[in-house]
Amino acid sequence: MRALLLEQYHEDLASAIAGLKVVERPRPVPGPGQVLVRIEAAPCNPSDLLLLQGKYSLKTLPSVPGWEGAGTVVENGGGWLGWWLQGKRVACALKDDRDGTWAEYVVVSAMECIPLRRDVPVEQGASLIVNPLTAVGLLETARRGGHRAAVHTAGASQVGRMLLVLAAETRYPLINIVRRDEQVELLQALGAEHVLNCSHENFADQLKTLCTRLSATIAFEAVAGAMTGTVIGEMPANSQVYLYGALSEEACGNIDPIEIIFHQKSLRGFYLGAWAKQQGPLRMLRDARRVQKLIADGRLATKIQRRLSLDEAVEGLQHYTTHMTDGKVLITPHV
Amino acid sequence: MRALLLEQYHEDLASAIAGLKVVERPRPVPGPGQVLVRIEAAPCNPSDLLLLQGKYSLKTLPSVPGWEGAGTVVENGGGWLGWWLQGKRVACALKDDRDGTWAEYVVVSAMECIPLRRDVPVEQGASLIVNPLTAVGLLETARRGGHRAAVHTAGASQVGRMLLVLAAETRYPLINIVRRDEQVELLQALGAEHVLNCSHENFADQLKTLCTRLSATIAFEAVAGAMTGTVIGEMPANSQVYLYGALSEEACGNIDPIEIIFHQKSLRGFYLGAWAKQQGPLRMLRDARRVQKLIADGRLATKIQRRLSLDEAVEGLQHYTTHMTDGKVLITPHV
Repeated sequence: MRALLLEQYHEDLASAIAGLKVVERPRPVPGPGQVLVRIEAAPCNPSDLLLLQGKYSLKTLPSVPGWEGAGTVVENGGGWLGWWLQGKRVACALKDDRDGTWAEYVVVSAMECIPLRRDVPVEQGASLIVNPLTAVGLLETARRGGHRAAVHTAGASQVGRMLLVLAAETRYPLINIVRRDEQVELLQALGAEHVLNCSHENFADQLKTLCTRLSATIAFEAVAGAMTGTVIGEMPANSQVYLYGALSEEACGNIDPIEIIFHQKSLRGFYLGAWAKQQGPLRMLRDARRVQKLIADGRLATKIQRRLSLDEAVEGLQHYTTHMTDGKVLITPHV
Repeated sequence: MRALLLEQYHEDLASAIAGLKVVERPRPVPGPGQVLVRIEAAPCNPSDLLLLQGKYSLKTLPSVPGWEGAGTVVENGGGWLGWWLQGKRVACALKDDRDGTWAEYVVVSAMECIPLRRDVPVEQGASLIVNPLTAVGLLETARRGGHRAAVHTAGASQVGRMLLVLAAETRYPLINIVRRDEQVELLQALGAEHVLNCSHENFADQLKTLCTRLSATIAFEAVAGAMTGTVIGEMPANSQVYLYGALSEEACGNIDPIEIIFHQKSLRGFYLGAWAKQQGPLRMLRDARRVQKLIADGRLATKIQRRLSLDEAVEGLQHYTTHMTDGKVLITPHV
């Protein structure tokens, strides 16, 4: 089979992408409890870029990147679940140090496969797991913590749009932070009630006022840099900030010690791997079913800017890293 | 009575201290459940300096500063506890928006008084609560969290020396961080096994190695600035950093998002007020008894650099802020 291969980590992202090679690899063989998925589409998520840079949980190199994707189960290595999945369209995500989805075929645990509804297109199924289930997990964390409203610092991102839909479903109040006026309009057009532009001069005051009014004591933070400290500073006492991304590519800073010590605010991390482990497979399946229903109803969609064959991948990924807001790119290895 | 009065907060510490005035105030009258304490000695702690700067829980100004002190109960406002305390030497700490201990007399709740053992000098009793019970609370937090060893970033501070004694008592492993070679020697002379100098070039590597070897997954952080990020970065996955001070007077920074997100490390605050509330008065009394025993045995002592009459206070506090490592200053209003 053909696959994209990562031979070496590069902290510089452009170099890391440039180092990807299209190679012939032996088609992997599923063991007991595993299945072989013929990949139709696999997205590039921020966590894939982190992997290329060596900043994520490390794989033994050389290795095939790609944390998630969708396709058809064409072989099973034994076990009732693998047998049942045989021939089905599935979404899948890797949990460990195996070759990933940026290849014609991938071996995954049958437990890691989510059968796709007939009315969910495979290209939407390709992004079923990482972003939507992160959004579900963040909102669930907020609800279980008894927080009455939440702040999200990357309002215009894919996760941001999914949070909007999921929060609207249960009328959970969400304060969306964006960087540009056109993003304010975009989110309002999608039905967002509270949108703040962090480039505005009085942003900090607006954030404080709104957090106090709505009792927003949890934040989903995906920007890092000075944003982390600003959000911690303006939220009410006892607030919790969950960092799940670092779009600014900067270290978190600007955090006033007084806020942490005397106002008992905290900074912690959210990531899907840890959350999924804590939830267990049945709850994750239930959440995935909920997401599929929203996709099928046309209420939730991953915006796709371009499909890339394996040969186009290096060029296409380079372009993507500077045009992320245009939507996801999908690697479509059989096209 | 005579007292020091704070009329206005100043973010600039020197201006804040310069603004303190010695005034005549009516001697306060204890209400039911309260007692009047004739203050013999009251220390200046970092939390007092924060109060002067308006960075701590705010009082209605003008007000008398001073969070803790020791003296004799000379009057009670009714209630069996106040009656029992009458004539006794006590340490006391304020919890709320009342006039503080930098005065000849203070009214406190009888519940906030800790009777002093005969063999504990009043000048040691004056610092019985804020620093020693912070050290007790930090270690107790580490133990309850199941952490097998702890990092302390202000090893040579008063709290640092107390942590040394308390940790040695139960052979709890402590990694002490200091800034200068003479502090390394000082702490080793006091029996510290693990002391690292953060000014050394390979400090970060040493910290990582030692934390891994001892399974140190909790840090008591009192420096802030870049130290917060360094400590978070070098500790093992799932570590918790408790900020309880900001000796650098800088914002916390340098925090790598990867450490927070994927290695699930967290930053939270510790402060005595919140801890005491959570513990309840009986446990705090038990902890104070333990501290008094250590003082009486000569194993725990607050180093005092100077006593200040009310008239000397402004000059003495100014000097203290640039010579903190020489020991505490005590305000002795009746001398």
